[in-house]
Amino acid sequence: MTTDPYPRIGDAFGHILARCWDAGATPWSAVEVIERDDALISTGDASRYFTEPERWPDLERHVWAQATGRILDVGCGGGRHAVPWSAQGHEVMGLDPSPEAVRVSGERGVKAVVGSVPSLPDGLGQFDTIALLGNNLGLLAGPAQAPAVLASLAAVARPGARLIGSGTDPGDGGTAHAAYHACNLRRGRARGQLRIRVRDGATATPWFEYWLATPDELATAVAESAWTLESLDRDPTSPGYVVRLRLPS
Amino acid sequence: MTTDPYPRIGDAFGHILARCWDAGATPWSAVEVIERDDALISTGDASRYFTEPERWPDLERHVWAQATGRILDVGCGGGRHAVPWSAQGHEVMGLDPSPEAVRVSGERGVKAVVGSVPSLPDGLGQFDTIALLGNNLGLLAGPAQAPAVLASLAAVARPGARLIGSGTDPGDGGTAHAAYHACNLRRGRARGQLRIRVRDGATATPWFEYWLATPDELATAVAESAWTLESLDRDPTSPGYVVRLRLPS
Repeated sequence: MTTDPYPRIGDAFGHILARCWDAGATPWSAVEVIERDDALISTGDASRYFTEPERWPDLERHVWAQATGRILDVGCGGGRHAVPWSAQGHEVMGLDPSPEAVRVSGERGVKAVVGSVPSLPDGLGQFDTIALLGNNLGLLAGPAQAPAVLASLAAVARPGARLIGSGTDPGDGGTAHAAYHACNLRRGRARGQLRIRVRDGATATPWFEYWLATPDELATAVAESAWTLESLDRDPTSPGYVVRLRLPS
Repeated sequence: MTTDPYPRIGDAFGHILARCWDAGATPWSAVEVIERDDALISTGDASRYFTEPERWPDLERHVWAQATGRILDVGCGGGRHAVPWSAQGHEVMGLDPSPEAVRVSGERGVKAVVGSVPSLPDGLGQFDTIALLGNNLGLLAGPAQAPAVLASLAAVARPGARLIGSGTDPGDGGTAHAAYHACNLRRGRARGQLRIRVRDGATATPWFEYWLATPDELATAVAESAWTLESLDRDPTSPGYVVRLRLPS
């Protein structure tokens, strides 16, 4: 016991996800606590990781429906996107750093493995669609990290493959985030680069980078990669957007 | 931004309470995050601070109904106990360290002031009943602190006054708490002495002591005070208990 608490490092995200799933994914059966490295705490209903397509934002559902062929679901969580793909007959491989998320996906009939970008596990094979849905464009991590992430995904993508993803424009941050954004800019980071971790009980995930890129920042990162930006659509009612990228055929 | 986050010290509890109240006290309209000093995080639905007597545990409702005369509600929060007392015609004074809790209580028609035990604010006057409900026997803080807390409350109590309160037996702690209990015992603290703070957004309350006393520990603390233990009733279905203490007439 100290005044500077150090949680045990472990699968906090997976614990929350599994608790929610084991409780029937009912609203607020588990609470996700996210801590940012300036000590900002936010909470959310973990059942959002199990919502069905009818309840997703229109744009997310629209881009989700454009998946074709064999799909790699990056940051698959509990299978929110992969389960309905499977139901439609797609071959999906889930990827998540959380062993419990992989277990829950498996229980739901989705093949998934533990792993994360940019150091993908061996033996994944090749994919026609790479998915970074559920705001997982954040996994591009930052302008400095994005090239390696995009290259790692291109390396498991077939010629002509598509990458679909959703992200969040950090905007001006409002009163709650303006100081964090300013601190990022002073340190040469992108405005919306977050360093966060998930906390649950005595456990926390390792800190990780999650990038809320502006559409312009995202376009710049893509332009420097093997991928081509086919479309970027902004949600008219939120800071969200979705993208579709393509590899050369 | 550092890897050792230091939140801003402020009225995190009150912010949560007020957000819940402003949202109509609907379930999960605000989430309370409590951090223990070993980094254990727990979450709860803040609407529990606004439940009506019908939804309280039987024992809590029973001891609540024994209040008489002028009442001091220690740790009044948003007025959960004080509002229905007022509705029954009791004169109640709420006391809470949270300015926002005091504001919410005021909006609900309960006179309340900012303050805490054992250094009570001046001018409270004298009371017939002192209430430490909603588990607020925890505010006795620990075996070393309890005498000062009980004395401070006796100092604002009329001869023959009653103290009613509810608490939680820490039991053996189960797997989640056994190590914390053992650490407490090694350091000469009571098994169930918690050092906790409430976190909300970028804000945390100061750390404070909250004592889950066993019934025996509580009886010992009372025996060394001006108060006499009239009754202690254990909840048959939970670790909770309620007590009734009395000052000499």
